[in-house]
Formats: sequence, C-alpha cells, structure tokens
Amino acid sequence: MKRKPLRIGLVGTGFMGRAHSNAYRKVGNFFDLPYEPVLQAVCARNAENVAAFAAKWGYASTESDWRKLVARSDVDAIDICTPNDTHKDIAIAAAQAGKIVLCEKPLARDAREGAAMVAAVERAKVPNIVWYNYRRVPAVTLAKQLIDEGKLGKVFHYRAVFLQDWTIAASLPQGGAGLWRLDVNAAGSGVTGDLLAHCIDTALWLNGGIASVSAMTETFVKQRMHNLTGKVEPVGIDDACAFLARFGNGSLGIFESTRYARGHKALYTFEINGEHASIAWDLHDLHRLSFFDHRDESKLRGWRSIHVTDGDHPYMGKWWVPGLQIGYEHSFVHQVADFLDGLGKGVAVGPTFAEAQRTQVVCDTVLESARTKAWREVAGA
Amino acid sequence: MKRKPLRIGLVGTGFMGRAHSNAYRKVGNFFDLPYEPVLQAVCARNAENVAAFAAKWGYASTESDWRKLVARSDVDAIDICTPNDTHKDIAIAAAQAGKIVLCEKPLARDAREGAAMVAAVERAKVPNIVWYNYRRVPAVTLAKQLIDEGKLGKVFHYRAVFLQDWTIAASLPQGGAGLWRLDVNAAGSGVTGDLLAHCIDTALWLNGGIASVSAMTETFVKQRMHNLTGKVEPVGIDDACAFLARFGNGSLGIFESTRYARGHKALYTFEINGEHASIAWDLHDLHRLSFFDHRDESKLRGWRSIHVTDGDHPYMGKWWVPGLQIGYEHSFVHQVADFLDGLGKGVAVGPTFAEAQRTQVVCDTVLESARTKAWREVAGA
Amino acid sequence: MKRKPLRIGLVGTGFMGRAHSNAYRKVGNFFDLPYEPVLQAVCARNAENVAAFAAKWGYASTESDWRKLVARSDVDAIDICTPNDTHKDIAIAAAQAGKIVLCEKPLARDAREGAAMVAAVERAKVPNIVWYNYRRVPAVTLAKQLIDEGKLGKVFHYRAVFLQDWTIAASLPQGGAGLWRLDVNAAGSGVTGDLLAHCIDTALWLNGGIASVSAMTETFVKQRMHNLTGKVEPVGIDDACAFLARFGNGSLGIFESTRYARGHKALYTFEINGEHASIAWDLHDLHRLSFFDHRDESKLRGWRSIHVTDGDHPYMGKWWVPGLQIGYEHSFVHQVADFLDGLGKGVAVGPTFAEAQRTQVVCDTVLESARTKAWREVAGA
Amino acid sequence: MKRKPLRIGLVGTGFMGRAHSNAYRKVGNFFDLPYEPVLQAVCARNAENVAAFAAKWGYASTESDWRKLVARSDVDAIDICTPNDTHKDIAIAAAQAGKIVLCEKPLARDAREGAAMVAAVERAKVPNIVWYNYRRVPAVTLAKQLIDEGKLGKVFHYRAVFLQDWTIAASLPQGGAGLWRLDVNAAGSGVTGDLLAHCIDTALWLNGGIASVSAMTETFVKQRMHNLTGKVEPVGIDDACAFLARFGNGSLGIFESTRYARGHKALYTFEINGEHASIAWDLHDLHRLSFFDHRDESKLRGWRSIHVTDGDHPYMGKWWVPGLQIGYEHSFVHQVADFLDGLGKGVAVGPTFAEAQRTQVVCDTVLESARTKAWREVAGA
Repeated sequence: MKRKPLRIGLVGTGFMGRAHSNAYRKVGNFFDLPYEPVLQAVCARNAENVAAFAAKWGYASTESDWRKLVARSDVDAIDICTPNDTHKDIAIAAAQAGKIVLCEKPLARDAREGAAMVAAVERAKVPNIVWYNYRRVPAVTLAKQLIDEGKLGKVFHYRAVFLQDWTIAASLPQGGAGLWRLDVNAAGSGVTGDLLAHCIDTALWLNGGIASVSAMTETFVKQRMHNLTGKVEPVGIDDACAFLARFGNGSLGIFESTRYARGHKALYTFEINGEHASIAWDLHDLHRLSFFDHRDESKLRGWRSIHVTDGDHPYMGKWWVPGLQIGYEHSFVHQVADFLDGLGKGVAVGPTFAEAQRTQVVCDTVLESARTKAWREVAGA
Repeated sequence: MKRKPLRIGLVGTGFMGRAHSNAYRKVGNFFDLPYEPVLQAVCARNAENVAAFAAKWGYASTESDWRKLVARSDVDAIDICTPNDTHKDIAIAAAQAGKIVLCEKPLARDAREGAAMVAAVERAKVPNIVWYNYRRVPAVTLAKQLIDEGKLGKVFHYRAVFLQDWTIAASLPQGGAGLWRLDVNAAGSGVTGDLLAHCIDTALWLNGGIASVSAMTETFVKQRMHNLTGKVEPVGIDDACAFLARFGNGSLGIFESTRYARGHKALYTFEINGEHASIAWDLHDLHRLSFFDHRDESKLRGWRSIHVTDGDHPYMGKWWVPGLQIGYEHSFVHQVADFLDGLGKGVAVGPTFAEAQRTQVVCDTVLESARTKAWREVAGA
Repeated sequence: MKRKPLRIGLVGTGFMGRAHSNAYRKVGNFFDLPYEPVLQAVCARNAENVAAFAAKWGYASTESDWRKLVARSDVDAIDICTPNDTHKDIAIAAAQAGKIVLCEKPLARDAREGAAMVAAVERAKVPNIVWYNYRRVPAVTLAKQLIDEGKLGKVFHYRAVFLQDWTIAASLPQGGAGLWRLDVNAAGSGVTGDLLAHCIDTALWLNGGIASVSAMTETFVKQRMHNLTGKVEPVGIDDACAFLARFGNGSLGIFESTRYARGHKALYTFEINGEHASIAWDLHDLHRLSFFDHRDESKLRGWRSIHVTDGDHPYMGKWWVPGLQIGYEHSFVHQVADFLDGLGKGVAVGPTFAEAQRTQVVCDTVLESARTKAWREVAGA
Repeated sequence: MKRKPLRIGLVGTGFMGRAHSNAYRKVGNFFDLPYEPVLQAVCARNAENVAAFAAKWGYASTESDWRKLVARSDVDAIDICTPNDTHKDIAIAAAQAGKIVLCEKPLARDAREGAAMVAAVERAKVPNIVWYNYRRVPAVTLAKQLIDEGKLGKVFHYRAVFLQDWTIAASLPQGGAGLWRLDVNAAGSGVTGDLLAHCIDTALWLNGGIASVSAMTETFVKQRMHNLTGKVEPVGIDDACAFLARFGNGSLGIFESTRYARGHKALYTFEINGEHASIAWDLHDLHRLSFFDHRDESKLRGWRSIHVTDGDHPYMGKWWVPGLQIGYEHSFVHQVADFLDGLGKGVAVGPTFAEAQRTQVVCDTVLESARTKAWREVAGA
C-alpha cells in the first residue's frame, strides 16, 4: 500500500518535541498505515537550537516564529510541544489555517482557554488530538478492553496516584527552559495540570465521568528563585494535590499527586475494583498489568502479573517477541499509529480536544474545590 | 526471676478472644517478664460455648454474665473482646471494680462512649490499654524507630488504605455472631471504626495529630437480611470511607477503607514520604518493610525490601533465626509483653484509653465530615 | 471429645527444642485431635540450662542424661532435637524402649546411620516421624494438592535453592553450641545435610524419586577456630553444594545451596514447570504460592500470587481470617497435628524414618558425586 | 560535528534484521557519534520480501544474493542476521572483502566454525562485533560498573537461567522461517547456542573465564514435522540444558536454559553473590537492577530495586526523564552507539569475534560434557 505523506510542523524542541519526533520516525517501520509522517519543519525561538534539533531528527526545514510555521502551505499538521501558556494561541491559529492540530497535554492552562481551543477546531472542522499518551501503553489499553468486555462488572472503587520527588530541594529555581512547570504563568497549575491530568484522562476513559470532587492542595516551598526575572518570587503552583471523587457510575474515586514523594520518579498507578475483578497498573513497570479475577477457582485466586508482551496483547503484535518489553516512548508511536489510521478512515481518534477539555474541567473544579475548601460539582458531568 | 501471676478474666470467645488467649499463653515462652498471665476465667453468654472455649484454651473457670466476672476477687484484669456496643459498660464497671482493663479496638462505638470510658479508668487509676495490635508488628515498630531517629526528616505525605472484599455479595446478612460488624447498633460504624481506626491509630503514632479532614462514605448495599430480627433491614454502616487530612506537622494525609475492593483480603498499607527517606508497609507481607533512602549513592538508590527477621529488629531477637518470618498473631504477643513489662515498671504502655480516644475523635470527625459534606476540624487536635 | 495424653520427652533445648515445644503447647488450641501432648520431661546435659528451659516452657521434669529419659516409663514419645551425631544412638535406644520417636532432620549424619535407625523403628514397630517441617507450610501443601490433582500435567523441570549468608566471615568459629553445624563430626556434612536435605525432601514428595546426580561442593573458608578444641582446625563441611539431577519421571532437576549468598537469610525456593502449569514458592514469603496456568485466557495469563490465608487453604481454616498470615513456627504445629491425627487413626504419617532415609541416600550420593567428580546413580531410586 | 556515513549492508530480514535496522535508524537521534549509519542495502533470498522490507525501513537498495552484497563497493559494513548455518561463509567473505563485520549471536554453530571466522577477521584486520545485546541493557551495564568498582568483593556464586515455554506443544514443526531454531542443521544446537550463549557471554564479561563444566541436556519432544522436508524427523537440538561450572576466580556457577518452563516467555535472570554485596537482574523487568549491600546499616539491609532510568545510569542520560523506562530494542541502539564511537576512536568494542568465540568454546564444552556425562575442562580457559 502506498502511504500518503502527512507533513508535520513541530513547535517546540524539548522533551516532548523529541518524544513526538521519535514517534513520527518510527511508526512506519512497525505499523501499516495509510499515511507516512514527513518531518517537514520544526520551530523554536532559538535559531541555533532549532537547527541542531532539525539536523539530529531530520527535519527538512526550520522556523523561529510559530506564526510563520502555521502559515506554511507545505505543512499539513501542527504539533504543539511548547509550554502550556502557548497552546491556546498556536492551536487556534493552526485550526484557523485549516491545519490538523496535535497538542501536547494538558490541553491548556485552564478550562477557559481549553474551551476556546475546542471551539476553534470544531469550527474549522480539523482533525485534532491531545497527547494523553498513557492510554496507549499496551497494559492500559488491555485494561480498557477488559472493562469493555465486562470483566469487572459494577465498579466500586477507582484510585490513582502520580508521585514524583524532583522538586523537594528548595534551591531548585522556577521558570524558563526545563523548569517552566514550576512557573504558574507558564504552566497554569502545578501537579494538577501536569500529573493529575494524566490520571483524570485515564479515569474518564476507563470509568466514565466524575460528578463531584473535594480537593486539597499544598505548596511546600513557598518561594523560589525565578530564572526569567532573576528574583526570588512566590511559587504559584500546587506542589501536591489530592482529591476525593464521586463518579457518575456510583463508584468512589481517590486521586493524589505530588512532586514531594521521596523515592518515586514518575509513579503513576491506578487500580479499579469491580464486582468480579480488579485491575492495577504502574508506570514504573508499564509493561505489566495486575489482574485479579474472583471467578478463578477459590483456592487458586491471586493477583496475576500479566507481562503484556504477547502477540495478542494490544499493539504488541507489531513489536518483538513475547517477553521482550517495550518502553515509555512506544505509547507515542501507538498514538500516532491510531491517529493516522483514523485519518485514513475519516474517523476521529481520541482524546480529541473536546475529550481533553473534560479533563480540563475536572482539573479546574479540583483546584476550585481546594481553594474554597468545599465539595464542587463538575460542570457538564 | 520469679514471675508474679496476672489473673485474666476474658470476656468474649470470638476471633479476638482466641487471639488474646493465644498471646497470654505464649508470651512467657518467649519473653522474660515480671508477670505471667494466668487464664483465670472466661465469660460468654452461651454456657456450652464458653465451656468448650475454656477447655480448649485452658481457662480455669467460666462465667456467663460479665458482671459476675468483674465482681470476682480472684481476677486482676478484665480483657474485653466483645462487640463494640458492650465495651463501655464492661470497661467502666471493670474500672470501678479496680481491675486492670484491656479493651479490643475500637475503644467504643463513638467518641461520647469513649470519653466516658477514659474518665472511668482515669478516675479509678487502673492500668489500661487498647489492642491496636499493628503498632507491634516488628516492621511497623521499626518504622517508628526510623522516624524517631529522624531518618525521614520533614514529612510531606502520609497515605494509608485498608482494603477488604468480604461483603460484596448482597446476600450476606447482617447482625449476630460473626456478622455484628455489619450491624450499626453493635458496631457503631462500618469500615471507619473497624478498619480506618487501625490506620488512624498508626498514623497518629507515627506522624502526630490530624488537624482537619474531608471525608466521603458510601453504603453500596442498602439493605440486608438481619440475623437477629429475621427481616430485611436498612444497612446503617459505611461500606467504604475515604478522607483527606491535614496533619499538625504540615503533611498531607489520604486515607481509604472499604470492604468492596475485590482481590484484597486485609490489605492494610501505609506509606510515609519524608524529605530524606520514605517508608512503606503492607499487612499482606507484614514481615517486610520498604525503605527508600535518598542519601544512598545516587546511582544505587532504590526501595529496599527489608525482611524484618533479624535479631536487631524489634522483638525479633525473641523468636527464631534470621529469614524465618512470624505472623499476625505475634503482634498480640508483643502487646502483652510490653504491657506486662510496663506493669512491672509502673509505666503506662500505649495505646492507653486516652490515646485510643484520640483515634475515636478522628473517626467521629470523619463521619461527621461525610455526613455534612464539609471539611471539619478535629476537636482537641 | 476427650483427648488422650501423649507424654513427650524432649532431648535438646536449642532452636529446635523451642520450635517443637511451641508446637506441642499450641496444637490443641487450634486443632481438634485425639491426643494432647503433655510436656513430661526435657533433657539436656547442662542442669542449669535444662531447668530454665523447663520453667520457661512448662516441662514437668528434667533429665541430664538421655538414656535415663528413654528409660522412663512415664514418657510415651522421645523427640530428638540434638545435633546430628547423636540422632542414631538416641533413636535406636528409644525404639528399643518401645517409644514413639520423633527426630529432627536430617535423619542422621549419613545413610549408614540412617539405615540403622530405620531398621530399629521398623523392628520395634514404633510410630516415627522426621521433622521436615516445610511440607506443612500451607502454600507448600497447596502445591502438593495441585500436583496430585493433575494441574501441572507432565513435569519438565524442578529447581530449588536454599541460600544463606551467615558464615561468610572467616572469623566465625566452628563447633559447640550454636555452631555445631560447621563441625563435620557433629553435623555429618555442611549445607547438604542441613539445607539441601530440605529441598530434597520436598522434591521427592512433590516430584518423585531422583535417579542420578552430578554434584560439586566447595569449602570457601578452609580452616576455622574450633570452639571445643580451642585450635584452628580444617573445616570438614561443604560450604556450598550444587547438583544436577534426573528424576524418575523424566524431569530435570537443578539444586543449589550455600551459606555464602550475600543478601539471603534463609531463602529456600522451589519451582516446578509442568506441561499445563507452573508453581513457585519462597520461604521468605512463605504464606504465598505463585501459580501460572496456561489454560487461562490467553491475553490474561500471568503468574498469580496466591495469599494462602483462606479458609479453604490447607490448615488455614484453623487459624485466623483471610489475609492474616501465619509464620514459620506454624509448620511445626501442623506436623504435630497431622502426627497426632495419624496416631489416633493408626496411620503412619510422613515423612517417616524410611521416607527420610531416601533423602539421606540422595544426600550421600550427591556428596559422593562431588567427591568423585562424576555422575552417580541413586541407590534404590 | 559532521558525522561520517557508515553504509550498512544487512543480510536477513527476520526478527534480528528488524531489531538492527531500528537501531541504525534511531542511534543518531539520541547519541552524538562520529558516524551515521546509512541503510544502503538489504539482502534476502525472497525478492518480494526484501523489497517490502527495504520500503518499510528505508533501505536504498536490495540484493537477493549475499555474495553480491559483500562485493559491493558502496557498502562499508556487512551485518549478518541470518540463521546460524550461514554466519561463517558470509562473515569470512565479508572480511576478505575488507568489510566491517557485525554478526548476530551466536557467532556460529560451533567453535570450529567460530575459529575460522575469528581467523578471517583478524587476518583482514577489519572491525568486528557480535550482537550479544544484553550487555548493553543499562541495568546490566550498571552491574558491570559495580563489579569493576569492587562493590561485590570476592565472588562466591554466579547463577543464570534463560527460561522460555514456546516449544512445549509437540505439534510445533521444525525448520524454515521462524522455526529454524529447532532445526539442528540450521541452528547448530538448541537452547545452548540460542539462550545459554547469552548467559555465558554475560557471565564471562561480569565474572571472568569458566574453567570446567558438568552438563546435562534433554530433548523432550523427540521428533517433529520438518517444514523443509515435509516429513516427521528426529529433533536434533537440545530442548533444555543445565550445567554446573567452576569459574577461574574460584566462584561456583550454575546455569540452566529450557524452552519448557511454562509461564516464562524470555526469563533471562542472573544473580551474583559477592563477599560484600549481591546483584540480580531479570530480562522480564529489564529496567531494574536488584542490589543488596551488606555495608548498609544492619537493621536497614534489604534488596534494593533500582529503577535504572536516571541520568547518571548507563546510557539513560540520552533518553527520557527519570522513571520512564526503555525496552528491549534499546540494547541494540546502545551497541551501535558504542560500536560507532569505538570506530571513531579506532578502538575495538566488544564483544568482538574473538570474545564471542570464548562463549562458543564454553557452549561446545557444555554440549560435550552432556554427551559424555562427565566434567570437562574448557579449552584455553
């Protein structure tokens, strides 16, 4: 099958710029798809950096102003990998220019920005997606399959945490490259938008809508040197956030995220307890799914550790052989594969902007609950 | 050393009656103590049962009315192993009779009952203790040592769950022997008093007072056949309870308990994240402590799984040899050992009634927060 | 049911003397049995020690010469907990005196001694048993059930290790109390008789006879101070031993034991791979059994970690409630329970002396293979 | 830095052809190197397949006869990914043509073939390497660092297994694409050359030479349909192989491999016990290293589970951020990176053919030991 080119214009050359570029370059080697991503142009403000990035990854051209990139007629899709405060403007401009828009998560700094972005892509009728990549870790996709097959039955409990420990040192500054996540202006929020957003996206996908929440947040280090101003400034983000939730399906949720959990680098875990079976997953061993089935013979019941590397596991038939694990970066490859497949079929592939906006609304409600120290209903849930 | 006899009068012959009796019988074989428990009398309403129990465990006599037991001059200590609704009356009568009082947890059905009990033992100046046995699992005691040594530094997070799955079937009745925990009149509450009380006791011991909470509870099965009335009756207990907490030391807490977590029999886990180190423990593998130390050489940092069976681990020098694990029941033996040691020295050994009452107050505040859907301050915290 | 007394005469007050005494004292509290062990007499050479032991454990009398104990008419059973070099003489004398004989493992220092002991108990027709206690860890007994039910199908592989690390320091002496296991005259051999004997007993029980072996042994520390002579003397025991085996059923075996495996206190593990399923167990978490079933739905296959604490798990209905683990010492309680039950029914309960002698023969063959650096057939296999 | 092209001619389009191609394509995106691999030509007998492979992976040209590929002047390096029976002829021809030679493991079907290959590359003085990729899993490389730093001290024990379960079904045929590993003519041996060769390569690298071995092999399924002849034919390979070893440094080794270990897909594990510390690793969770350090504070000793994803872990600074794991395929990328780096510096990077030949000699000795049922010295050890 002849693959059609899909010319990518990438904005941002940081961690996510690399993760997405890697996905574009690899996807065609492992998946049979109607489209082949073409690394047409990469854009970043620093000309030297962007040239080096383009050379390293094989981008055909560079830009230093995203508005120029968006205006180029030889680009089909704009992929936004910049800090959160720029998502809205780029996405809206790209949509208005008729481009496909792929946006790194979270969709925006808050639900107000997100709503404008959703409106823009829907008005422009352009395909759009947000990179909540963990849905496409094979073990997580397998969890979704099990739920859809009814293996769990009625769900009683959902719990998720995303624990890190990289900001404990009070000497760590905020702001600028690599540290914009600590700067509330750039990020919108702290762990809520950065980490809990992942947990919420997965939860909505696996367990349906969240109806109401009661949250608390904390900022343990109250002020940090700001790299952009050179001054010690108040820290505006939440260092930690935890919330109770009631899902629309009657189950109870409990969520927590922090960057002050010593010993955890990026420990995203979730567990779902159903009437018949339970599921648990852990990003630190992402190629495994834990599964307990009450229908097993009584004396032999136990949590199974499923090494999700077999040919009949989601996506895994495309990779190596059973027992050989894939890693973090593959979730992005899978997302590109699904997106291109959907593009060929004319089918929207989630999480779309509209879907990601639901996560944004939960995040906003969580932060508002923490601010007001009260339970809050999630609008539109 | 000649050991003085301590004549025990046990009330209740259920699960806890057995656990305590076992502890009394074993403690002298493994610990050198100033007192030797003597199984003087056991009391339960059913004469046949109490006789069989006495024969099996070697009690010298039986009673069918706890008031008679309390009145006996040949009994030094009353040990209360009956359902929660009887704790108050027995404890107060025992204190008034000048007996040492040992009471199974939770102290009472609620803080009001608990306050009366505390007043009684303090007025009578009798030694008293509540069986929050998990403090004396060696791995948990080791956790306490590490905290007291300052290994963790400033604490940021505390999280605990107690998950079970034995009441999922709607056909399970409530009330009566073995099932009084589902009957709100007998138990006072559901998982809050039964399971979270353990989590809270440990938390207060390891991390200090809880200042405020926001909770939610749920009763998944709304009515059950009642064994005592023979009718289907509303279920008054909480099947699940989760709450956010702020500790007095500035750390954040998150607690959850349920009897609807498929796959977990009695999974009590806690984790504490400090500035320098973190600790985690799990009742399903109670002989292990997980420990992460950020002061380890950078490239060799990792969670250590400490097999708490060495001679220099708490209590373990009294048992077997390194590598050979002990079990659940040993926590009761340790509690008796510590209690008798304190008795010899004239020192109160915790958790006393007064200490257990603090847990009771937190439980009440949690339930009130859930009822009112609002954050609540913990009185006296 | 009225229980008949079984008057025990214990020889030896070390680690095993304690473990057995504990079992005798506890068994009647948890199991309904036709016999009740009575702690009639304990024997050890040091009069002060034996008196203290008797006081601590409640033995009614003491002896300092085992020949006197064996001659007592008020003792029904002789339990041998002394170093290996004394097993033969005590056991033969006890059998000749018509006593029931219980002997700590290994049966003897070598197969020649063992054969004499088997002959003695068979000639005297006295009930006899050897304390290979690990058969009665509930998880191990469950493994046996699964094999007997045919869950594994044809077996291909058996592997077992018993790893310790307590003799690495060259400064550790040999000989005398607590260290007789390093003295070849007292012990007969090193890890082969002490540790591999456990692995072999379990293997023969679970997987049938071993036909041939190829072994290697090593003594890492060649000489140690001897506590009894006060001189540095050659070390005669094997510090480590590993062997390949072919079982009678066509499966391959691989066994290893050492006291030089840093990080392992008493890590006895075994794994069995069958056509349909596999089983693994680990003494450091003895309350769990790992089980893999190829007949599970393909995408959901994984090793199950079975928490062997349910009422329908072997022995566990007698203890606490699901999720609450028991420990090492309970395996001895179970052995006493089974032995007394068999005694009531007039049925021999294994491992009898004759059964334990098969392990002795494998041990001897392993050591001979190592000495001769050649494959050796196991006599009578 | 301008990178020089290194024009690759790949032979073979199977599993390894894909793994190597992926490595060539990715290495420059993540590593700064003096050379850039250029996918110049790919060769396989089936013209249709090779064209599809070239299209998928971006090879500039194709060949159907490896002799033509070797003869091409626009190819700098020949990479051999074909079945074992073709390694020798291709490698020798490539060396004679002055090409760099990269050869998939094992080097050859036996040591005789291997010796001829070593002679050829040494005579031709061409850079050469064998793809024992597991050395470059970051956790394994970290193990090597720890050993080289002396963290373990004197080594007592080395144990390794490589367990699979994919050939248990007797209905599985042998021979031809995908199943040549079961055909002794194509493969040379069974698990010994396929799986144990990996274990041996790592062992020689981490623990030095093996002096002598005692082995056993088994072929559980004696005959299988042969895909190339269409007839049921005897199976010539070893389905399982286990051996005892003595290393030159005085430590004891124990190795086992099988394709009949139900529940294990590709479980390569090794463990090394030293005087001061121990190390363990497991391919099923390849991003973790287990480490036990006896120098830790006594009561806090435990096996650490190191999540090898930090910037100061081998290779990991080139990938993502801490906590995000990489997978199997990355070991090949690392091998290419090291090889190209060595090429730039004019330094040989192992495992060279000569180094891989040592593994070949051990494999041959193992098989000879099994055949003769006797201990065998390893030649040249």
